[in-house]
Amino acid sequence: MKRTIGHRCWAIPEGYIPPASTGRGRALESHETVCILNAGRRAARVSITVFFADRAPAGPYRIVVPARRTRHLRFNDLREPEPIPKGRDFASLVVSTVPIVVQHTRLDSRQPALALLSTIAFPVR
Amino acid sequence: MKRTIGHRCWAIPEGYIPPASTGRGRALESHETVCILNAGRRAARVSITVFFADRAPAGPYRIVVPARRTRHLRFNDLREPEPIPKGRDFASLVVSTVPIVVQHTRLDSRQPALALLSTIAFPVR
Amino acid sequence: MKRTIGHRCWAIPEGYIPPASTGRGRALESHETVCILNAGRRAARVSITVFFADRAPAGPYRIVVPARRTRHLRFNDLREPEPIPKGRDFASLVVSTVPIVVQHTRLDSRQPALALLSTIAFPVR
Amino acid sequence: MKRTIGHRCWAIPEGYIPPASTGRGRALESHETVCILNAGRRAARVSITVFFADRAPAGPYRIVVPARRTRHLRFNDLREPEPIPKGRDFASLVVSTVPIVVQHTRLDSRQPALALLSTIAFPVR
Repeated sequence: MKRTIGHRCWAIPEGYIPPASTGRGRALESHETVCILNAGRRAARVSITVFFADRAPAGPYRIVVPARRTRHLRFNDLREPEPIPKGRDFASLVVSTVPIVVQHTRLDSRQPALALLSTIAFPVR
Repeated sequence: MKRTIGHRCWAIPEGYIPPASTGRGRALESHETVCILNAGRRAARVSITVFFADRAPAGPYRIVVPARRTRHLRFNDLREPEPIPKGRDFASLVVSTVPIVVQHTRLDSRQPALALLSTIAFPVR
Repeated sequence: MKRTIGHRCWAIPEGYIPPASTGRGRALESHETVCILNAGRRAARVSITVFFADRAPAGPYRIVVPARRTRHLRFNDLREPEPIPKGRDFASLVVSTVPIVVQHTRLDSRQPALALLSTIAFPVR
Repeated sequence: MKRTIGHRCWAIPEGYIPPASTGRGRALESHETVCILNAGRRAARVSITVFFADRAPAGPYRIVVPARRTRHLRFNDLREPEPIPKGRDFASLVVSTVPIVVQHTRLDSRQPALALLSTIAFPVR
């Protein structure tokens, strides 16, 4: 377990925050999430750049994932340098100072029963 | 961020446009999507070939994804050289002039609550 | 497009045919599917071995995917050498005579609104 | 089929046991699953470490997957050294003595119709 686990750059071409929800509470609110595992011994300083169809990219959004911790970050919660608009197609690039593993998940509760999607992100390098 | 991000050829063996929808509006209409991220500095000229079970492939369908932009293209919207039939199994091959990253997503709203699936496509080279 | 596309061996650790359905017709019947893309110029002779938790593997199940065609095969439809039991965990290994690309999809309509999952299979070699 | 199939270390950044269910019986109870295929000729001794956002990792959880068998293990069922809390974000690292293939699946039945997600895990090495 001493070798590094993961890559320093990951891409997620799909991104969309459903603009409505039918569930109650934060857990069932529609959300778009990037799940980051930092299995290593050093904190990961992570920068996320968000790409759109028709304007220049937003970001970087900066977060820290401590050593041997996971963080499931909702795009809904990003505020600085600007919020991600709901109901709009985007993509993201996740760059870290140390190797991490990234998975992309959406919960969509626009209709009375929620839907889920998930995939390991694409490891760029 | 100066190195290339992605591959020039991607495969998606699964493809199906659900032939019905229960949601209202374009956002909730059943759709099959290819999400393309072009994180590079040059526009991507993309050709999509669609394979079927029992006839010769269709295409190529040609689109452009500008530099540092994403495009979420619905197979439903393809018209030239021919529309993709609904309710029929297909697969696709996505070839680009520059490296891109590709993700496959379906929203199926045939029944009263929508369903989602998504996966990073297979990077051929 | 002259080089080979894909691998000759793919693994799918997840497998489960939901034992009930609420939708009408074959399209909405719960099913577990392996989607195969043969983008090459020669027919693919494919052998599928199915693994279980508590008995010896079943198969091989043999199918052919013609050149430049896709085939979305339901595990529900396999009959020779034996049907796959519903409601039971399994996994599968897909071996081909020529390179192919494999994706795994499930439609689960046990409850009144269907659910979907999908992932590119794991390319063994 | 004599060569090894898979890797000895896999990562799953996403993990969440939905804290409620609407379906009846074990099959429809919300669950988070790791599906392991051991296609080889030797038993796999597997250790799973679970990472959280705000505390030290739990585990290792130890299981055995016999030769040429699959095992779909629910995180819900883990008891030793401690149960995994429901409704809390986690991630996992799966390490095996022999090559295996790992897929991650969730069934979420908090709302009246179930939702599914699945992805091949990330092969670390």
